[in-house]
Amino acid sequence: MKNTRLILITLFVSLYCLPAEAQRKEISIPDIPSYLTLKCDFHMHTVFSDGTVWPNIRVLEAWQEGLDAISITDHIEYRPHKKDIQADHNRSYDLAVGAASAAGIILIKGSEITRSNPEGHYNALFLEDSNPLDTPDFFDAIQAAIDQDAFVIWNHPGWSQPNKIPVWYDIQTQLYEKGWIHGMEIVNSSSYYPLAFTWCNEKEIPILACSDVHNLIPAKNLIERGSHRAMTLVFAKEKTKESIREAMFAGRTAAYFGNNIYGKSEFLKPIFCASVAVEALSPLKDTKSIRIQMTNESDLDYELVNQEYPDGFSGPEIIKLPAHHSIIISFKNKEAVKSWAKIKILFAVSNLLLAPEESLIINLPGLNNY
Amino acid sequence: MKNTRLILITLFVSLYCLPAEAQRKEISIPDIPSYLTLKCDFHMHTVFSDGTVWPNIRVLEAWQEGLDAISITDHIEYRPHKKDIQADHNRSYDLAVGAASAAGIILIKGSEITRSNPEGHYNALFLEDSNPLDTPDFFDAIQAAIDQDAFVIWNHPGWSQPNKIPVWYDIQTQLYEKGWIHGMEIVNSSSYYPLAFTWCNEKEIPILACSDVHNLIPAKNLIERGSHRAMTLVFAKEKTKESIREAMFAGRTAAYFGNNIYGKSEFLKPIFCASVAVEALSPLKDTKSIRIQMTNESDLDYELVNQEYPDGFSGPEIIKLPAHHSIIISFKNKEAVKSWAKIKILFAVSNLLLAPEESLIINLPGLNNY
Amino acid sequence: MKNTRLILITLFVSLYCLPAEAQRKEISIPDIPSYLTLKCDFHMHTVFSDGTVWPNIRVLEAWQEGLDAISITDHIEYRPHKKDIQADHNRSYDLAVGAASAAGIILIKGSEITRSNPEGHYNALFLEDSNPLDTPDFFDAIQAAIDQDAFVIWNHPGWSQPNKIPVWYDIQTQLYEKGWIHGMEIVNSSSYYPLAFTWCNEKEIPILACSDVHNLIPAKNLIERGSHRAMTLVFAKEKTKESIREAMFAGRTAAYFGNNIYGKSEFLKPIFCASVAVEALSPLKDTKSIRIQMTNESDLDYELVNQEYPDGFSGPEIIKLPAHHSIIISFKNKEAVKSWAKIKILFAVSNLLLAPEESLIINLPGLNNY
Amino acid sequence: MKNTRLILITLFVSLYCLPAEAQRKEISIPDIPSYLTLKCDFHMHTVFSDGTVWPNIRVLEAWQEGLDAISITDHIEYRPHKKDIQADHNRSYDLAVGAASAAGIILIKGSEITRSNPEGHYNALFLEDSNPLDTPDFFDAIQAAIDQDAFVIWNHPGWSQPNKIPVWYDIQTQLYEKGWIHGMEIVNSSSYYPLAFTWCNEKEIPILACSDVHNLIPAKNLIERGSHRAMTLVFAKEKTKESIREAMFAGRTAAYFGNNIYGKSEFLKPIFCASVAVEALSPLKDTKSIRIQMTNESDLDYELVNQEYPDGFSGPEIIKLPAHHSIIISFKNKEAVKSWAKIKILFAVSNLLLAPEESLIINLPGLNNY
Repeated sequence: MKNTRLILITLFVSLYCLPAEAQRKEISIPDIPSYLTLKCDFHMHTVFSDGTVWPNIRVLEAWQEGLDAISITDHIEYRPHKKDIQADHNRSYDLAVGAASAAGIILIKGSEITRSNPEGHYNALFLEDSNPLDTPDFFDAIQAAIDQDAFVIWNHPGWSQPNKIPVWYDIQTQLYEKGWIHGMEIVNSSSYYPLAFTWCNEKEIPILACSDVHNLIPAKNLIERGSHRAMTLVFAKEKTKESIREAMFAGRTAAYFGNNIYGKSEFLKPIFCASVAVEALSPLKDTKSIRIQMTNESDLDYELVNQEYPDGFSGPEIIKLPAHHSIIISFKNKEAVKSWAKIKILFAVSNLLLAPEESLIINLPGLNNY
Repeated sequence: MKNTRLILITLFVSLYCLPAEAQRKEISIPDIPSYLTLKCDFHMHTVFSDGTVWPNIRVLEAWQEGLDAISITDHIEYRPHKKDIQADHNRSYDLAVGAASAAGIILIKGSEITRSNPEGHYNALFLEDSNPLDTPDFFDAIQAAIDQDAFVIWNHPGWSQPNKIPVWYDIQTQLYEKGWIHGMEIVNSSSYYPLAFTWCNEKEIPILACSDVHNLIPAKNLIERGSHRAMTLVFAKEKTKESIREAMFAGRTAAYFGNNIYGKSEFLKPIFCASVAVEALSPLKDTKSIRIQMTNESDLDYELVNQEYPDGFSGPEIIKLPAHHSIIISFKNKEAVKSWAKIKILFAVSNLLLAPEESLIINLPGLNNY
Repeated sequence: MKNTRLILITLFVSLYCLPAEAQRKEISIPDIPSYLTLKCDFHMHTVFSDGTVWPNIRVLEAWQEGLDAISITDHIEYRPHKKDIQADHNRSYDLAVGAASAAGIILIKGSEITRSNPEGHYNALFLEDSNPLDTPDFFDAIQAAIDQDAFVIWNHPGWSQPNKIPVWYDIQTQLYEKGWIHGMEIVNSSSYYPLAFTWCNEKEIPILACSDVHNLIPAKNLIERGSHRAMTLVFAKEKTKESIREAMFAGRTAAYFGNNIYGKSEFLKPIFCASVAVEALSPLKDTKSIRIQMTNESDLDYELVNQEYPDGFSGPEIIKLPAHHSIIISFKNKEAVKSWAKIKILFAVSNLLLAPEESLIINLPGLNNY
Repeated sequence: MKNTRLILITLFVSLYCLPAEAQRKEISIPDIPSYLTLKCDFHMHTVFSDGTVWPNIRVLEAWQEGLDAISITDHIEYRPHKKDIQADHNRSYDLAVGAASAAGIILIKGSEITRSNPEGHYNALFLEDSNPLDTPDFFDAIQAAIDQDAFVIWNHPGWSQPNKIPVWYDIQTQLYEKGWIHGMEIVNSSSYYPLAFTWCNEKEIPILACSDVHNLIPAKNLIERGSHRAMTLVFAKEKTKESIREAMFAGRTAAYFGNNIYGKSEFLKPIFCASVAVEALSPLKDTKSIRIQMTNESDLDYELVNQEYPDGFSGPEIIKLPAHHSIIISFKNKEAVKSWAKIKILFAVSNLLLAPEESLIINLPGLNNY
């Protein structure tokens, strides 16, 4: 039908193109010395499993929200739309890769191996071919991922458990002893699993936070500064797929969820220092009263809780330093302070967590710039 | 595989359910005497033609944005995802109807008959069965819709025309003379066609504004008051499919696009009067100086341009009355005004349009409440 | 100097005029049957005591924020700017009354009688002349207010007390027994005094919430819907000074602070009912599953906590119904419900408080509209 | 009265203190090589002339909005509150300097010499003592400022002129020839004077934009990114009063008004380059199709208008690059581009103005980072 062919030419809306008016919001979590802080989401679904969008939409959402890298991880075993949609397991990647390239989003091929508990769900990242993972035996499926040097993540360890509390079964011991659990979600969608965080710290397993989005990323995440999906921060040498892979296997990840970042001191401390500038409003020598202006250039609302003041010192117990704003803080001492640099005033940064009940500790006088 | 069956039970995320945290923003365009002002979008696509979302997503977007009724109008002839997706033409409706019922959204079955120019594209609404429209001859396709008592809309009349200026071909004359053009889009997506508006006024064709969304409704439309897709206002006796149908065939529609409403004086004037409350701040009898507070409870930013002041009167040339705010306006007269009600001060409401270059005229002293 | 006189004419910026671009945000707390819900702030300062703005600014702020009535209550005894400013105690009222009239704001003449504890601070409202209150003896000062039929408010009863917990001294007993405490602030600025609320309930003293603003009303209160200063809701027959007076002496007040309203059931229940519309999404007879859409047209984010479900019923434990949005709620029953109207499902409205630990209880099936 | 003395101690609210919850919004206009970009407002009023706030409020507003330096410039000759307020001309500075020091705001002593046209109004900045300026003869008053090495600004040159078009009288010639006009407002409050901008370019007079605020800085300027008063950008070596003075006499100023910056290419070009980062999404060698991502880290919404494409090149005519967002731009060439660095694609930056009708021109391939 000649008519229809013409339509094809005239109508064709390239899935590779971003909408003309599209804008990308940048996420202000700073880079740290030696590493870029890449914003990544390694868990999401499309119509090719139980999601409700075409694969290019996941790229569009990620670009708008300010992400650097994503992985589409459709279920191998669970495809409720299969009455309408038949395709192999690489199809969602193939349909998204052009859009990703056009948008400068790093797209990592992934799949979700999906079993009931005690096995649970596992994302395999950096795959070459997803189809071999479609095999009845659970260990065979994982093996098929391992054979491709995949990064294997135990997803939502508290899923389908009472009170969402993770349970570590024998099967996880088997996997862990084989070296087959390379990462673990301590946050999935809106659920945070403190126990999983503890396990990761004990067993030195890299942590992740993932959206596991099936429908739409909430609208506010796409346009409001500070609103964002659960995501994994990867501290990578370069903005490339290979660098992300290297960083993940090396354990250079953190979990960004709500207003909190969960991770190791070696990453959280430089994030704090790169986020916050301090300026002295009064001379810092030989004065009993010290005033500083703190400026927070990040998307995080920092909260600092004083741990202890030196004898004779007084100041605020709690400092609230909202995103993209400055505040002024006053300290007093009974006698003139000769060397501010030698003073120790420790604060816990409530929203930077090294463990479920442990915040990063910083020494305010020891911070940069003054 | 026992394992998989368990997954099906445990994982199943009903497409009929709204996300737990979902919120619906209400659109503040008031009802008018005798009629509800229903917010409708009768043109949109899913993966079942050249869109990129599953049908339930169109319901979710509509509910969040504050719409009352939608029609999913996948192309009959243009289905670029058919390599992956095979289904008949009723499938997108069937997959959305449960979600619509759960969300209280009126879902009207529709399809888009899709030809190159000079025929163009036509939405057929209120269908029983979309499949008969899939027939090679253009007139046969329209006939198949007419046979089902469908409401047939000529979509985007300026599509694929130089400078997007609509062209009325012989073929439209034929359709019009048969009584087969029941409505016309004067706005499609981000394009407004003034010439189409003129034609509709001359030929008494009901007007529509439609999103024609293929990807995602922009995030800000889902959450920001006053941001919205192009939509059709239907002045219906009840919030039912039958009432919408009756209203559309009776020509009770208007087009809501950006900050403008396009339509007939008999609908736009009561919308203005129901949006704006006026309160006298000074006594309205025997005074040379009159102050009024105007309160705008609608989502529209009204702009009023003075047409003429009576002899001796003075006041603002332009009044800007932003959405959900009040302003105070002062008028002066050379002598005391005995009867404010007898004064005539005409203003054109710039954003309520009766024709491409003609705004609604209102008499400020004649408004309600004072 | 001729030059200067010309300047006077050319430069003169009338303090009575609102800025040309000024807009008033309306506060959406609905009227209730028989009464207007007036938004009032009866405690604020200017440069004529220890405030930092000229009196007209208090009117401008109130108009922009959406208030109906204010009282400027400069301290009689505490005037730290007196080196620069000399004036009698009526001066701040006199300088604001023109601006108030121009803006349609009801301005009530008031003053703050200011003593250290145990006496404390007292606002006297509806004064004719503030100057007689400037007298050394505390009881003489109150008497001077009472002589003018003033409404006397005990301000911030927890001021300067340990942990801000109010202390009721002998002196308050004396005042109360004379009938000289007509109202009490249960909220002042950012401080809420639950114990004062309890006293007011026990002793039938009308409650107030006041800003006590000295510097500027925070910017966000002037422009963001839902952001607001602490204010008193007065349930008045008309929008006049006399009606406010009558309502206050009759005890028809409530305190609006943050997202909470504190007051009597007879006012809070109709506010809730006028704020929330309910629409059935499924037939309400003979069904085991009921879905309703709740629409909240107010500025309040309502939170409803279930008290108990009837045998066989299930539904959400907590319902969050944000300002200016709709949500959908589902209930299930083991058997078909024949008469929804006879069902009792009680919820506590967390943000409407009858006493410090007691929320308003509503019966959801008994609400309006369905 | 013992009672009152106690109050003084208990009540005292230091005017030097910022409100506990106060936050400063930072203005994102980047520094440029060699200079800090200081945000300054050198024209404002308090109750000590015809303004309506106490001097400390001007400091509080400036700190919240993100300014670095201000000057309070009360009229010498026009003091409508003098019935209530008597003080010398240094008083507003004296009352603000403590608050400024506490907030880290640089406060420059200034006064406004105020005459009718043809003389007009002149701000004198960097004064030691404002009182000598209070003298009947206009030239004597200016001389008194010059004697203190003041920086003298001709304010709002179009004030009180038909259509606000500036008029250059003999008197300005006399001042200019004496070297007594050191700066000129090309923007005052909401008025922009293109003719004044032209004069400044011709006569090499430093330009300024000033708020001339009398009442309140609009609320949205205090809290919304990108909203701001008219202000002067000073390119200073350090954040000190002396550096500002040096920069202003050296002509290193620009005017920031709405979304535009007005000034010299030597300042506007580095502002653009420091605001915008460019990243290549496709290899830049040997390709016919080039895609770049542009990221705008400033508060400005940049608009770039293409001036000409080289033969064979095509790309967008207009590029809109909103504040704090990224966009992707595509260019095409007929043949593969060997050296992107040698290509010239000129764009005019609409919102960076070198003269009333002349925008800054940039060469996109020549920009930083790629």
